[in-house]
Amino acid sequence: MSHKKTVSSSAFSRWFPILSWGRQYDREQLGGDLLAAAIVTLMLIPQSLAYAMLAGLPAQAGLYASMLPLLAYAVFGSSRTLAVGPAAVTSLMTAAAVGQVAAAGTGAYWDAALVLALLSGLMLVIMGVLRLGFLANFLSHPVISGFISASAILIAFSQLKHLLGIPANGDTLLQLLPSLWQGLAQINFYTLVLGAGALAFLWWARSRLKPLLRRIGAGPRLADALAKAGPVAAIAATTGAVAIWNLAEKGVRVVGEVPQGLPPFTLPGWNPELWGSLLVPALLLSIVGFVESISVGQTLAAKRRQRVEPDQELVALGASNISAAFSGGLPVTGGFSRSVVNFDAGAQTPAAGVYTAVGIAVATLLFTPLLRYLPQATLAATIIVAVLSLVDFGILRRTWAYSRFDFAVVVLTLAVTLLAGVETGLIAGIGLAIALHLYRSSRPHVAVVGQVPGTEHFRNVLRHQVHTSPQVLGLRIDESLYFANARYLEDRINEAIAEQPELRHVIIQCSAINDIDASALESLEVIETRLLEAGIKLHLSEVKGPVMDKLAGTPFLQNLSGQVFLTHYQAVSALAPESIRHDSGK
Amino acid sequence: MSHKKTVSSSAFSRWFPILSWGRQYDREQLGGDLLAAAIVTLMLIPQSLAYAMLAGLPAQAGLYASMLPLLAYAVFGSSRTLAVGPAAVTSLMTAAAVGQVAAAGTGAYWDAALVLALLSGLMLVIMGVLRLGFLANFLSHPVISGFISASAILIAFSQLKHLLGIPANGDTLLQLLPSLWQGLAQINFYTLVLGAGALAFLWWARSRLKPLLRRIGAGPRLADALAKAGPVAAIAATTGAVAIWNLAEKGVRVVGEVPQGLPPFTLPGWNPELWGSLLVPALLLSIVGFVESISVGQTLAAKRRQRVEPDQELVALGASNISAAFSGGLPVTGGFSRSVVNFDAGAQTPAAGVYTAVGIAVATLLFTPLLRYLPQATLAATIIVAVLSLVDFGILRRTWAYSRFDFAVVVLTLAVTLLAGVETGLIAGIGLAIALHLYRSSRPHVAVVGQVPGTEHFRNVLRHQVHTSPQVLGLRIDESLYFANARYLEDRINEAIAEQPELRHVIIQCSAINDIDASALESLEVIETRLLEAGIKLHLSEVKGPVMDKLAGTPFLQNLSGQVFLTHYQAVSALAPESIRHDSGK
Repeated sequence: MSHKKTVSSSAFSRWFPILSWGRQYDREQLGGDLLAAAIVTLMLIPQSLAYAMLAGLPAQAGLYASMLPLLAYAVFGSSRTLAVGPAAVTSLMTAAAVGQVAAAGTGAYWDAALVLALLSGLMLVIMGVLRLGFLANFLSHPVISGFISASAILIAFSQLKHLLGIPANGDTLLQLLPSLWQGLAQINFYTLVLGAGALAFLWWARSRLKPLLRRIGAGPRLADALAKAGPVAAIAATTGAVAIWNLAEKGVRVVGEVPQGLPPFTLPGWNPELWGSLLVPALLLSIVGFVESISVGQTLAAKRRQRVEPDQELVALGASNISAAFSGGLPVTGGFSRSVVNFDAGAQTPAAGVYTAVGIAVATLLFTPLLRYLPQATLAATIIVAVLSLVDFGILRRTWAYSRFDFAVVVLTLAVTLLAGVETGLIAGIGLAIALHLYRSSRPHVAVVGQVPGTEHFRNVLRHQVHTSPQVLGLRIDESLYFANARYLEDRINEAIAEQPELRHVIIQCSAINDIDASALESLEVIETRLLEAGIKLHLSEVKGPVMDKLAGTPFLQNLSGQVFLTHYQAVSALAPESIRHDSGK
Repeated sequence: MSHKKTVSSSAFSRWFPILSWGRQYDREQLGGDLLAAAIVTLMLIPQSLAYAMLAGLPAQAGLYASMLPLLAYAVFGSSRTLAVGPAAVTSLMTAAAVGQVAAAGTGAYWDAALVLALLSGLMLVIMGVLRLGFLANFLSHPVISGFISASAILIAFSQLKHLLGIPANGDTLLQLLPSLWQGLAQINFYTLVLGAGALAFLWWARSRLKPLLRRIGAGPRLADALAKAGPVAAIAATTGAVAIWNLAEKGVRVVGEVPQGLPPFTLPGWNPELWGSLLVPALLLSIVGFVESISVGQTLAAKRRQRVEPDQELVALGASNISAAFSGGLPVTGGFSRSVVNFDAGAQTPAAGVYTAVGIAVATLLFTPLLRYLPQATLAATIIVAVLSLVDFGILRRTWAYSRFDFAVVVLTLAVTLLAGVETGLIAGIGLAIALHLYRSSRPHVAVVGQVPGTEHFRNVLRHQVHTSPQVLGLRIDESLYFANARYLEDRINEAIAEQPELRHVIIQCSAINDIDASALESLEVIETRLLEAGIKLHLSEVKGPVMDKLAGTPFLQNLSGQVFLTHYQAVSALAPESIRHDSGK
């Protein structure tokens, strides 16, 4: 009875990791979490505003997405240090998906973003509960590399309009570049000065601010925290400039009025057509968000020898997105840079996320009036600086050197994402990666084997001095048999029949075959029938236990014209004893 | 010089198999080919009319598709006995594809069918020249089984309206059944009598006519040929009935006026939007047609120990479809039943196809006026009888017994094809098959290995009495490493780090790893970094030659914290000599 209770309570706390770390929460952890939360809050305020803008949503959506989702992750998340919230690539994907079903700036647009968050959240929870995390495997490394670099470039170009104060639109380079070019005539001087200034400052601060602070005497922790607050400084300075010199009246676009207060309760509307058209984008968004999140989560956990449960992470991310959908937010994920900062600042438990959410709530309650003068150009500058570090062209050189197939996948994903948009790019990359994988395994290594004279060993006739018989063909297949290579095997055996007129027996040496699926079984039956009609018997040798179990009940094995031999040597000895060489032949 | 000439002439005749069989053509082959052609012509006339009707095209399109395409196949085809022409499933796919872009019965509809044939032909030729025949591997056996059965059912239901003389439409059961139900009130009595009579006769003739003919004294060959001509008899009888009793005026729908004469030259129009929307249907059509064609071609070739070249077959089928597009036809493929008849009737070379084309041309020139009274109900009956033999529900039982994954693919393909149409069904089936394959290989067998005391062997700790050390973790991975299982490996090693606090060395035993792709290499780098941060070294043992060659130049291997050992025993001896048991421990 008590044992049962333990089991069910541990199964329960498997779904609620908060129950395990929450029970042992102590003063020391509190200290680490509070400091980390303070730094992450400073970082998250500009990011949440900027990524909401990138997603085409009002600034407050970003703030709302940085409260409840963090609480949800704290309850369900298995990573101790992941920092959830709006992120660059998911916001770009949100803009691309929602832009196809609603016009930017409308209420319908925000509604659609909430539906996207809800759908993505539901999908993530379902994937977690059904343990479908393997779906993320479809996103091979070359695909994600090409996709992230291309997304970062698209994001940077999409923000140029805010930096220059010109109108421009588009989800692809083909749309963005002409649009930017046409807008160049309308550059707003004040916007450009603010934007370029912020960009230059942030670019400089990224690598130089911390050493400078150290030189002028700041302690390492303080210097680090202040350097992280660079975007806040840029926001404060440019907001001040706009307020003092009344630049908003001179054409500098500002964030403007942002409602003060906690997130509203929002109910994503049920609209079958809208939901249907957002299904595929939501799936892609879920997978990309999950891969980004799990990668950083696992990397950080390993540093402290902790564990992250992929299936539980799916549930936690799903809960975060669902709560974003019901509190006026936008799709969220575990952000890379933010999580690293959280970790480095000493976060010990997901409670740091709770304190961060409180910090954002306080900021939303107290400081939103200041955002009235915050120039969009500054937010654009923070985005550009953040995403350019994601561009990695080195992957092209590395994959070229390592494997042309992988190189092709990177190039295709990169090019299609840039030229045709994020969804098409992802799908094209995933499709090519799978096609190339199937191609690779569709032509497994098949060796014709012969006896090494004087031994019981059989080896590839092309590599060894071996003895064969014109009546017997021995084939060793170095791969499991499944649909992608089943027909290849048929081709190879058809060839052999046509080339070896005296052939009476084909023996397939199955030592390297770990599985045979229904397609391959069908091919074996076809091969067997064809051989029989040509007067040739089919035999198997060295079939592995599990494969034999699977074959046991099938008509293929029951009607096999030949036999199943324990070893290839036994097979050849029984079928063509005269061909066996008992001396080494020298 | 003369050697060069031989090479280039043999390369040339690789693309034109007619050059090899044509040179040795003799009297005996002529006899076999002529007889086979006569029987196939009798079979092809009703089939070509019926499949044109199934595709929603005028009857003559079927006749036109049975002339030039057969000549093209004779020039390029590598199968000696394949009989090309319109076929049931490809005609259904044509109707589904073209019905989405044009209204049935219009000129635009026929034009679109020609574009579809041209696109499909071009794709097939390109696939052949680039040796992309492996694309057909995407169509696993469970997908094709479920798809063919579902298509046959859809075809049978789509022909019921002709049999009953009622209007009905739809590409799916969900559309067809209500449409048929609504039409029931308008059943045409005369049509029903003709159709049901033809259906009953054909059904009976299929199995009973030949034995009957034998009993009344016909020789086996003659009986066979006459039995094959059953549909022609049904056509003659019902056409006669319509003509004599003027049934066309009583509401029996007839084929009607068919232009007398050879195929027109048609030029499929260039319309980017139309071509774009037919791309995916053309690809699916190409793959389904190719798989049907190559399966029967290889089966027949093997019976005579001949060879069929898959890549050459792609080119030949492509040429056939292109010539169909330019001569007013519809998409064609190598039909199953027709090819078997051709083979059984003694066809020796593709010249039989040429004679068949001549037979069809003569029929088109002389007998088309007779088609004026041919009732559509008779054609519908021939289609229904032909396709019902394609329905195979046994596949459900067989795959259920063999593998639940394969069963799931059959059921999904069958259900989605019936309920959502041929293209959606195929794509869903292909998608699920690939997803399940990736799922299966995404969790490869990974064994923790330990030393069999007193030996140099290392075995799975779960199955053998072996010795391990708390400082060393040996993992044997029984699968090549690629994107689908790369992350799983990360998970497994993360687990191990978290569970084994004293761990100092991880050794991956690579004896079963045949390839490592870029994703897996990236995962290995991530694993290496994470281990290093936890103070653990990563080592490899028993790396295969080709894999070692590939890894040699990579930063992963250059920066590896640990070493690469020839054998796992050497690795453990070097890293934890105290853990090695030199006696068997008994």
